[in-house]
Amino acid sequence: MSGFAAWMQGVQQAMENDLSALLPAAGQAPQRLHAAMRYALLGGGKRVRPLLVFAAGQLFDTEPRLLTRSAAALEMLHAYSLVHDDMPCMDDDILRRGKPTVHVAFDEATALLVGDALQAQAFLVLAEAAGDTALPSPRLVQMLALLATAAGSMGMCGGQAIDLDSVGQALSQAQLERMHQLKTGALLRAAVLLGASGGKQLDAEQTAALDAYADAIGLAFQVVDDVLDATADADTLGKTAGKDAANHKPTYVSILGLEESRLLAEKLRQQAHAALAPFGGKAQRLRELADLIVKRKA
Amino acid sequence: MSGFAAWMQGVQQAMENDLSALLPAAGQAPQRLHAAMRYALLGGGKRVRPLLVFAAGQLFDTEPRLLTRSAAALEMLHAYSLVHDDMPCMDDDILRRGKPTVHVAFDEATALLVGDALQAQAFLVLAEAAGDTALPSPRLVQMLALLATAAGSMGMCGGQAIDLDSVGQALSQAQLERMHQLKTGALLRAAVLLGASGGKQLDAEQTAALDAYADAIGLAFQVVDDVLDATADADTLGKTAGKDAANHKPTYVSILGLEESRLLAEKLRQQAHAALAPFGGKAQRLRELADLIVKRKA
Repeated sequence: MSGFAAWMQGVQQAMENDLSALLPAAGQAPQRLHAAMRYALLGGGKRVRPLLVFAAGQLFDTEPRLLTRSAAALEMLHAYSLVHDDMPCMDDDILRRGKPTVHVAFDEATALLVGDALQAQAFLVLAEAAGDTALPSPRLVQMLALLATAAGSMGMCGGQAIDLDSVGQALSQAQLERMHQLKTGALLRAAVLLGASGGKQLDAEQTAALDAYADAIGLAFQVVDDVLDATADADTLGKTAGKDAANHKPTYVSILGLEESRLLAEKLRQQAHAALAPFGGKAQRLRELADLIVKRKA
Repeated sequence: MSGFAAWMQGVQQAMENDLSALLPAAGQAPQRLHAAMRYALLGGGKRVRPLLVFAAGQLFDTEPRLLTRSAAALEMLHAYSLVHDDMPCMDDDILRRGKPTVHVAFDEATALLVGDALQAQAFLVLAEAAGDTALPSPRLVQMLALLATAAGSMGMCGGQAIDLDSVGQALSQAQLERMHQLKTGALLRAAVLLGASGGKQLDAEQTAALDAYADAIGLAFQVVDDVLDATADADTLGKTAGKDAANHKPTYVSILGLEESRLLAEKLRQQAHAALAPFGGKAQRLRELADLIVKRKA
């Protein structure tokens, strides 16, 4: 196993334990809600956002306990968005990470509450970093504001809203990019910035470089998603394949075609590498994650 | 107009302006989402939580800008919970504050996103108090953690989950109390504690007294709600009346009967007054709010 693969496995395994510890116990009342929250969050997922947090944490040696809390908060927000996105009134999907979606395994009302409660838990987990890290409180407040901005109507929720409005519409590539910058890009950017800023108050130049990296991998992530959605099968993806085409949602493949989409992903990978130049060897894990995002098969 | 009535009207009017200013503008993209968020939050509601925040703020002279942010954050959480609660998979209600509910006026997917985005906005609005108040950051972090706890699976969402599980069940009075302590009580308690703690780090005795007050008015609020639901009509309430009985949900009236429920509300009002004794004249508005909650007609 390469050093990168071992590092990645280490983060993923630790994350599973940490997420479990940062959720209310399964036996804690109300038990059905807590069981459903654990079902939604634990036991799967590539943990891309936690990997980005820990990779960015190497830039300025952010303390591990703070990285854990930032990563857990982002993963809770991500999981809540998937639960709500899968509901019948949104994408109406029955399969996620190879398992029945929450509203199928439980019921719709519970899925709604699971998402709502996971979002609140995300802010709680980060706010409680005050108790077990050395981070100065003013910086923690900034991180909480960054998290809320990434989650809200000018971030992830805003991207979802644009996505809703785009069904059946002919979007330009620029409009499609804007949608994904918010829908998935906002949390990926937050992962990079939270990981790095936990170790150091970032200056404008550092923030701009990390923004450029996050923009590039965020778009690359979506381009590759669209390529995989058009070419892979459900067994490999762990979710329903061909869904976007069936829903008449615009994708990079539908706008650019398959081959151009693959070229775009490679170009974005190179942009991500270029953005990291100022950080030298400390950015090695971030470079490797950009490679992984573009070269993944699922 | 009494001094209390004038104070109340002043808070309500200021709140309307402040809530508008603390939401993204209607013209800001994504416009449909922002229009729906404004529809859900503005132009109505008794603003009970903001009134509690401002009343509790008098105990230790909390600075007004911080009270505004705490009140707005709570009202955003409250509004989001109503939007989600009204959805077809929950209470399936079509009327709220005399207007069509969000999923009726817009659509279900938008209602889901409106709730999600309002929750994120609540945390953003409070976190950004760092920029325009003198509150020390460690206290602000505590307040954000308190807000998240009140919103989450051990607070409001937990109460909703117990409520879901209780449909068609015979609950004891103790179980019904526990449900309401979380479902509506958690945010009312947070309102009192955020209002007071913005002015002073509360000691254990002060926190206990305010908890006792909040518990009493929280239950009184629900008991009176049940009495009104059983006796008033939709025009007066601005929402569908008799809904709980029709849904076979347990209520104070169904467990205790109408007359006993009214006596309980009065007893809780007296308990609320007793809890405020240590605060003397500074608690006058909190006393008047307890009276209002019990004596309201809608």
